[in-house]
Amino acid sequence: MNRTLHVDLGERSYPIHIGAGALNGLDAQNRRCLIVTNDTIAPLYLPRVLEALPDAAVCELPDGESFKTLDTAGRILDQLADGGFHRDSLIIALGGGVIGDIAGFAASVYHRGIDFIQIPTTLLAMVDSSVGGKTGVNHQAGKNLIGAFHQPVQVIADLDLLATLPPREYAAGLAEVVKYAALGDLQLLDWLESRVAELRSRDTDVLTEVVYRCCLAKAKIVAADEREQGQRALLNLGHTFGHAIETASGYGTLLHGEAVAIGMVMAADLSCRLGWASAEEVARLRSLLSALSLPTSPPPIPPDEFIALMQRDKKVLNNRLRLVLLRPLGHAVISADVPLDTLRESLDAAA
Amino acid sequence: MNRTLHVDLGERSYPIHIGAGALNGLDAQNRRCLIVTNDTIAPLYLPRVLEALPDAAVCELPDGESFKTLDTAGRILDQLADGGFHRDSLIIALGGGVIGDIAGFAASVYHRGIDFIQIPTTLLAMVDSSVGGKTGVNHQAGKNLIGAFHQPVQVIADLDLLATLPPREYAAGLAEVVKYAALGDLQLLDWLESRVAELRSRDTDVLTEVVYRCCLAKAKIVAADEREQGQRALLNLGHTFGHAIETASGYGTLLHGEAVAIGMVMAADLSCRLGWASAEEVARLRSLLSALSLPTSPPPIPPDEFIALMQRDKKVLNNRLRLVLLRPLGHAVISADVPLDTLRESLDAAA
Repeated sequence: MNRTLHVDLGERSYPIHIGAGALNGLDAQNRRCLIVTNDTIAPLYLPRVLEALPDAAVCELPDGESFKTLDTAGRILDQLADGGFHRDSLIIALGGGVIGDIAGFAASVYHRGIDFIQIPTTLLAMVDSSVGGKTGVNHQAGKNLIGAFHQPVQVIADLDLLATLPPREYAAGLAEVVKYAALGDLQLLDWLESRVAELRSRDTDVLTEVVYRCCLAKAKIVAADEREQGQRALLNLGHTFGHAIETASGYGTLLHGEAVAIGMVMAADLSCRLGWASAEEVARLRSLLSALSLPTSPPPIPPDEFIALMQRDKKVLNNRLRLVLLRPLGHAVISADVPLDTLRESLDAAA
Repeated sequence: MNRTLHVDLGERSYPIHIGAGALNGLDAQNRRCLIVTNDTIAPLYLPRVLEALPDAAVCELPDGESFKTLDTAGRILDQLADGGFHRDSLIIALGGGVIGDIAGFAASVYHRGIDFIQIPTTLLAMVDSSVGGKTGVNHQAGKNLIGAFHQPVQVIADLDLLATLPPREYAAGLAEVVKYAALGDLQLLDWLESRVAELRSRDTDVLTEVVYRCCLAKAKIVAADEREQGQRALLNLGHTFGHAIETASGYGTLLHGEAVAIGMVMAADLSCRLGWASAEEVARLRSLLSALSLPTSPPPIPPDEFIALMQRDKKVLNNRLRLVLLRPLGHAVISADVPLDTLRESLDAAA
């Protein structure tokens, strides 16, 4: 059963169409289109999109985060400008988070902002980048340093497109799903626990519900905080630990979602040591993540190095480590005054 | 006497400080700053800005519209990213329209938008780009094809900085001043006519008043139409004729403001032929522009070529020529149904 979620952002509101076969509803209303995709996705799904939009032009980029640069965005802009695309033209982003970010960014600056439709092809992109309007590219000095807030006019999350997603990438997407439950929706956590088999088999009805509930959760947070001042930081549950793990183990060793899964367990453990969450809750979170084929323990990293890496995270303000913790499971809070000793105990136990 | 105009755009409101010596009020409130300027302006005014901001970094670009590209914006972004500038850093745009556009664009996309202060060094930039929030760069396929709407946090229009402006560029700025009067403020037109000597001698008190009134006029139009849907098109008085003249005579032969001066007289002449403005009004406009050392007649361009060039202007919708005309002088209107014969008569008379 398909579902539609309306993200309410005043003038910039837009629908997310979710379900198996949702792509059949794609309609560009006779506007000129440029489909931006990559060379992994194009052979799999470009023909289906071109069936709906036979006159669309295509910009096929190399697959991979290393191509998420200003130069690549310039390539999309060249194709738009040299092709004489007007301000009422449309960009279709067909791919995962990288394609969504870069195509969305190109859309945000061409003619000072043209419309774009997102067709996410990974679970992570469906539950994460579908909502929030963040677009951008990386710089050698840092990820997402260059970008814009630009909302899509429509998101089409067709669960059929997840059939070809590699198992680790699929599981990494589920880590973000568990994150929404852990940070603010205990009912969702209950429900996920009761649907582990369906989640593992990529049941499209269950995934429709999952994507709907995660997008709804994110939409609520984003609507309250569109430009990321306060509450939106809760979405970073597990991320400060996760970034440190990603850096220590070398980027690309672990997928971002895998590092976030480990980071969430570590945040839960620290919350437990502070008396904010129970040991049962930590075990519960760890067990759900394991059941979804996700790692829950960090690779060996000396605690001192771990702390140093955490302090480099951009969420550090005035040299105080701001961490998203659980108080209790199902309710995330931001804490800027975690005793360093307690953090060290937690890291020692995990090491 | 200095004046301050508050541009009212809700959360994005900002002040324009206008007057001789206004630069003395520059205050970055201890934030990290990158000054973006060019190699013509730097020797003249950079020392004064560095006096106020001794710790600021400087990005000096080559002077000229040909450098208003995505590559040059990338150079500013490299300096920001490699220098570890944070999202609470500040860009100071010290220069004319090109510097304001490109530095403002870099500010709009660095960390998805950081603050910038504009210090315009040309009369045109003071009365035109100070208000409206348009930032951007050119593409080989068209001017300003890539950009963003991004408001400055402050504009400092120091009239002392106009002392070194070459005479033709100064006069070109005055053309835009006359434009504001012609399109909507007959009192301003009276006042300009009574201050020709002071305008020619660059009297800073008279210029303070001029910049204040022009920014106020533009701010009113922009506030009603921030993203350029309707009323803002009135600001294009003289521009469709002007662009055709610029193209026919080769870019760079005439300054933009000079072409606009000629274009306004042609728009007035056409308005007169339509019975909307009087012959006296056309003569009055022409005479004020002449007194300010501006050209008022186009170079010889065959009428058919002229019409073809006008139709290539981006203001053409559905192949109908949309022109901003006077009905009467002091009140601009947009007309989409000018008889081609009348337009041709007007061109024949001007040729």
